[in-house]
Amino acid sequence: MVKMSFENHIMKQFDDELEEIRTRLMEMGGKVEQQLQHAIRAISEADSKLAEQVIIEDRRVDAMEVDIDEACILIIARRQPAASDLRLVMMVTKAVNDLERIGDEARKIANHAIILSEENEPSVGYPEVRHIANSVTKILANALDAFARFDADAAIRTIEEDKQVDLDYKTALREVVTYMMEDPRSISRAINILWVVRSLERIGDHAKNLCEQIVFVVKGKDIRRR
Amino acid sequence: MVKMSFENHIMKQFDDELEEIRTRLMEMGGKVEQQLQHAIRAISEADSKLAEQVIIEDRRVDAMEVDIDEACILIIARRQPAASDLRLVMMVTKAVNDLERIGDEARKIANHAIILSEENEPSVGYPEVRHIANSVTKILANALDAFARFDADAAIRTIEEDKQVDLDYKTALREVVTYMMEDPRSISRAINILWVVRSLERIGDHAKNLCEQIVFVVKGKDIRRR
Repeated sequence: MVKMSFENHIMKQFDDELEEIRTRLMEMGGKVEQQLQHAIRAISEADSKLAEQVIIEDRRVDAMEVDIDEACILIIARRQPAASDLRLVMMVTKAVNDLERIGDEARKIANHAIILSEENEPSVGYPEVRHIANSVTKILANALDAFARFDADAAIRTIEEDKQVDLDYKTALREVVTYMMEDPRSISRAINILWVVRSLERIGDHAKNLCEQIVFVVKGKDIRRR
Repeated sequence: MVKMSFENHIMKQFDDELEEIRTRLMEMGGKVEQQLQHAIRAISEADSKLAEQVIIEDRRVDAMEVDIDEACILIIARRQPAASDLRLVMMVTKAVNDLERIGDEARKIANHAIILSEENEPSVGYPEVRHIANSVTKILANALDAFARFDADAAIRTIEEDKQVDLDYKTALREVVTYMMEDPRSISRAINILWVVRSLERIGDHAKNLCEQIVFVVKGKDIRRR
């Protein structure tokens, strides 16, 4: 089956272009990770300034996707890579798409942070958000790590961890609904929390997609949604 | 700039493989459109049998994505297409991803349909859902039409129409929140409606992505998120 790694290419000095794409992909991953952290902090500290920064910076994330995509098309057109190399480049175009969508969700969280910070009683800490935020931050970090090291086993472990996100998600939903029922005046605020929790859950999904792509390229197996 | 169309290839008998991918893409589009229609019907008619069918059929949609993706990789590896042809194939791999995610959202809607049908007072018609469901169904049909005819102008018009989805989305949200506030006992049910409305809005987003991809290939301009 396909057995490829960025490292092989580097060692053989085979392809500087491929290495450059790798660098840019990891840079984009780092940026997206930071966006998520800032969005979560904006929520928990009711920091609307930080939230606005996340929203502005999302444009950079979008531009990164378009640029890396274009670099991938050029590298395929110029080098006409064999099937295994090709899989690698195709994987990058899928990965940047997931990263961009993670960035989108971080921006949405930031939007809700602004709305929440404008309310009368901010800074309640949002314990419902905290657990899932921690799980999702961790899973994204692990996914990017697995990506950097091209480690399919780590990727598979990370996919397993996503189950924790699903549990945290369900717990958070229950808590928010209980809130609403106990105090209907909190409904409008609680719905903002609901969207935040949902965005976090989706980020976990995208991190899982990243892991599936690593497994696909390293092991040659498409384990998507199976 | 890039000026490519599936039709050119067909007329020149250039590429049967490309035509086959096109056929499979449109087939997947048709399937996803049907999934959406069934999911909406399952909600409005509280038809849990139909909802279950949507959930089962989603596996076929997933398989379609994996298969078309694989066909795209093979066609690039075998034919080593020039940049303009390459863009076309790359676009297909992005399009099937959006179609697959539309299928996912249809499955989620079907899940909520089952939960809602189990409640005591089903079949209330869900007027909040109806408007946005109509808009989204229309925009998806138009996007697939634009795809079939490779019509960038129609694609641009469809992107404009997505604004209607956003308006319907906001109206639906307001209605659901009003519901909740007026009758806190309805909260749990209303949250199910909330997720349905959100899924519909996301389907509109994915339909818009499809349109942006058409413009990208036909006009050579990347108009994503700009």
